[in-house]
Amino acid sequence: MTIQKHTMTHLPLGDHKTAPWYGKDILSVKQFDRLDLEYIFGVAHEMHDMVDHIGTFDLLKGKILANLFYEPSTRTSSSFTAAMERLGGSVIPINEVKYSSVAKGESLPDTVRTLECYADVIVLRHPEVGSAAIAAKAARKPVINAGDGIGEHPTQALLDAFTIREELGHIDGLTVTLLGDLKHGRTVHSLARLLSLYKVKLNYVSPDILRMPAELMDELSQKGVEQTEYTTLDACLPETDVLYVTRVQKERFADEAAYESVKGAYVINAEVMKAAKQRMIVMHPLPRVGEIDPAFDEDPRAAYFRQMEYGLYVRMALLAMVLGKA
Amino acid sequence: MTIQKHTMTHLPLGDHKTAPWYGKDILSVKQFDRLDLEYIFGVAHEMHDMVDHIGTFDLLKGKILANLFYEPSTRTSSSFTAAMERLGGSVIPINEVKYSSVAKGESLPDTVRTLECYADVIVLRHPEVGSAAIAAKAARKPVINAGDGIGEHPTQALLDAFTIREELGHIDGLTVTLLGDLKHGRTVHSLARLLSLYKVKLNYVSPDILRMPAELMDELSQKGVEQTEYTTLDACLPETDVLYVTRVQKERFADEAAYESVKGAYVINAEVMKAAKQRMIVMHPLPRVGEIDPAFDEDPRAAYFRQMEYGLYVRMALLAMVLGKA
Amino acid sequence: MTIQKHTMTHLPLGDHKTAPWYGKDILSVKQFDRLDLEYIFGVAHEMHDMVDHIGTFDLLKGKILANLFYEPSTRTSSSFTAAMERLGGSVIPINEVKYSSVAKGESLPDTVRTLECYADVIVLRHPEVGSAAIAAKAARKPVINAGDGIGEHPTQALLDAFTIREELGHIDGLTVTLLGDLKHGRTVHSLARLLSLYKVKLNYVSPDILRMPAELMDELSQKGVEQTEYTTLDACLPETDVLYVTRVQKERFADEAAYESVKGAYVINAEVMKAAKQRMIVMHPLPRVGEIDPAFDEDPRAAYFRQMEYGLYVRMALLAMVLGKA
Repeated sequence: MTIQKHTMTHLPLGDHKTAPWYGKDILSVKQFDRLDLEYIFGVAHEMHDMVDHIGTFDLLKGKILANLFYEPSTRTSSSFTAAMERLGGSVIPINEVKYSSVAKGESLPDTVRTLECYADVIVLRHPEVGSAAIAAKAARKPVINAGDGIGEHPTQALLDAFTIREELGHIDGLTVTLLGDLKHGRTVHSLARLLSLYKVKLNYVSPDILRMPAELMDELSQKGVEQTEYTTLDACLPETDVLYVTRVQKERFADEAAYESVKGAYVINAEVMKAAKQRMIVMHPLPRVGEIDPAFDEDPRAAYFRQMEYGLYVRMALLAMVLGKA
Repeated sequence: MTIQKHTMTHLPLGDHKTAPWYGKDILSVKQFDRLDLEYIFGVAHEMHDMVDHIGTFDLLKGKILANLFYEPSTRTSSSFTAAMERLGGSVIPINEVKYSSVAKGESLPDTVRTLECYADVIVLRHPEVGSAAIAAKAARKPVINAGDGIGEHPTQALLDAFTIREELGHIDGLTVTLLGDLKHGRTVHSLARLLSLYKVKLNYVSPDILRMPAELMDELSQKGVEQTEYTTLDACLPETDVLYVTRVQKERFADEAAYESVKGAYVINAEVMKAAKQRMIVMHPLPRVGEIDPAFDEDPRAAYFRQMEYGLYVRMALLAMVLGKA
Repeated sequence: MTIQKHTMTHLPLGDHKTAPWYGKDILSVKQFDRLDLEYIFGVAHEMHDMVDHIGTFDLLKGKILANLFYEPSTRTSSSFTAAMERLGGSVIPINEVKYSSVAKGESLPDTVRTLECYADVIVLRHPEVGSAAIAAKAARKPVINAGDGIGEHPTQALLDAFTIREELGHIDGLTVTLLGDLKHGRTVHSLARLLSLYKVKLNYVSPDILRMPAELMDELSQKGVEQTEYTTLDACLPETDVLYVTRVQKERFADEAAYESVKGAYVINAEVMKAAKQRMIVMHPLPRVGEIDPAFDEDPRAAYFRQMEYGLYVRMALLAMVLGKA
């Protein structure tokens, strides 16, 4: 985002005075303070209400989203498409970047500058860290980062936090347990950063080789977050308000035996969950492959599909905000 | 479809009392009785009228279709997309399942439960028999089977039967001749089952190794359908009201010579059609590769492209019905 | 396009008397005379005004575009998608032709006749010369050629000419310099043909092995166009009103040394552009790979991204025209 954005001529309704997010990029969880989150969550909550009571509305009628995916992600792509369509807007789906002339040597800034000739907002998924920032710098129109490699995926973190708020009513005072591969997942890193804006206690449960990075723990400590590490879930499950499950991939281990020795400790099922509170939630960014027994899905605490739906409302909110309509 | 469907909260207009198809799945031709067909055909006929006289209308404005294709089928996918768009609705196109994380180990029920967070109805094409039923069981929102392997493709059979009704005014009393590979085609099997709800005479014309399965013939006999088998068309063409042509694939034969010896008997052209009635129709599910001479296309009896168009109206009808708007 | 087009029954509003382009195909730059261009540019200019002042409008509400791409072209595909959506219409995206049954042996006429059952207009990109004409002959609905191999890409030439007119106010009297590979590019050939309808002076700057084809130069001479060939830009840059840059591909040369010896002469940067007028424009069909230094992008004469945007308005105009709404 450069100063040029404020002189853009193709967003005809210049309502940026009353709409503080108008024209802004969504690049990183680091750009938000607690007031920002409250604003986003407030708009997302309204979106939920409107979908429930009206079904659809033409808030973004005539607006066009360029959904630019350099790597496939059906879930995220579908969610943004649905968000735009539920608001009456249209989508240019660009999923085949790998085959197309756009990819043949063209720079990301050139691609983005071309697409903003056609669209009002660009959602970008790209395998390289920092690509969303590069795109945003080139673009006059707003760019939303839908994942840039091992970098950021801010709308995932926002929907995770929004899920907690909607399901449990508040975030302050909660104990959140992050389970699984805490070393590699941008999802848990971004969520932990967002939660550090609230008063939460964080538990980390992981195999020793997949522990939360020390630098991130230091960063959160300095913000006053209480953090405790575990290698098994049993010690901290009873106090947990939010259990956030992620996958432990076999490929992370030196050999199959090392993997087999730990994997059972990270599978959630009805038996394991007997030790948990009745009023708490289990989350997962999905897709899952064995980490949560499908038989647990009918348990009211299983929030992971509702989490997908909250993602729709968060993305509706962000699109409306950066297009000056919320 | 489970009982849960009646308690779903995200279809805001609860008009299931006046809309008997609201929330239902379309999985198999076996689920329909004759009254059902008459209802579907009546709605499809209205759709045709409305497209002709108005062009478009907002019956499904704000509704979203997840068009989930695990294998490519441009024709079927485009037809459902057009059906939704002609009714003012929107589409989430999901054609790249093979590349995406959705495919990476995620179960079909999980994929479907995610997509129903974003969409109001799911159309599924999947290579495995029974997958549509699995999806429907997992989903709260309606699922329409757009082909599950060698299983069912009910909307194809419905559009075939609707074509006959619209072109010839009725189905009772007709002689329908099915030509080509009658052993493998789910298309002719499903159509024959639907036609058995009417008073029709069925002729089967096929090479000996590609005859109609005996079990299906038994099933239809028990419903009182008169069936006759032929190896060449000449004996039954003069009495035929509907000639339904399918492809005879070379791969089905033991050797090229066996194929070459029969293939000529299953090609339709102007010369062959001299023996047919003036008032009858030739149908084909398309694509064709040599089974019907393109020079015959201008003959008024060539109904196969009109058949494609009838498919649009049938799919418009089904979408409107399961979304409670017809 | 055949006479049948005038009897088509599925474009419900028969306004072909007052809309002279209603139902017509857009296949080749050769089909246009100067009055046609003025009409197209007038409509495109109105589209620009409307996008700037209103943002969107429902001129093509309910109309459906089948965007049929047999080879990927994100830029052109996205531009047509955006054009249709900005006018309130819908799109059936068909980008996977290579995988689908449509491609498995089905003829292009059959594919087109199927798609026109669902859509109101077909945009076709196909690798084979003449394919757009074949499609148009089969179709009752209008077909727009979005590139057929080394044949034509008429909407590119139209947007190029429209860019010149909008940026410089007129085309008559201008000196247009075409730079780069003038032998192979359909883009420069089509643009030169369109410009021959105006009073322009054309300069050709290329390596000797990539000169403008003699037959095309003869064709333009007979229309009275003044043409001059150069191997370097310096002699004609000062008089140039429009500098149209295209890529010089390494593969065109016998060896790397031959390529290296010339490539520097075809790179545009701020230093080179010191010799040009202050009021002139630099164009490029994009994507670029090194032919224009990105540091030049901020120069007001750099018109190549604005050129992309003019493309949107031209395609909006063409869609509205052939659908009888302009």
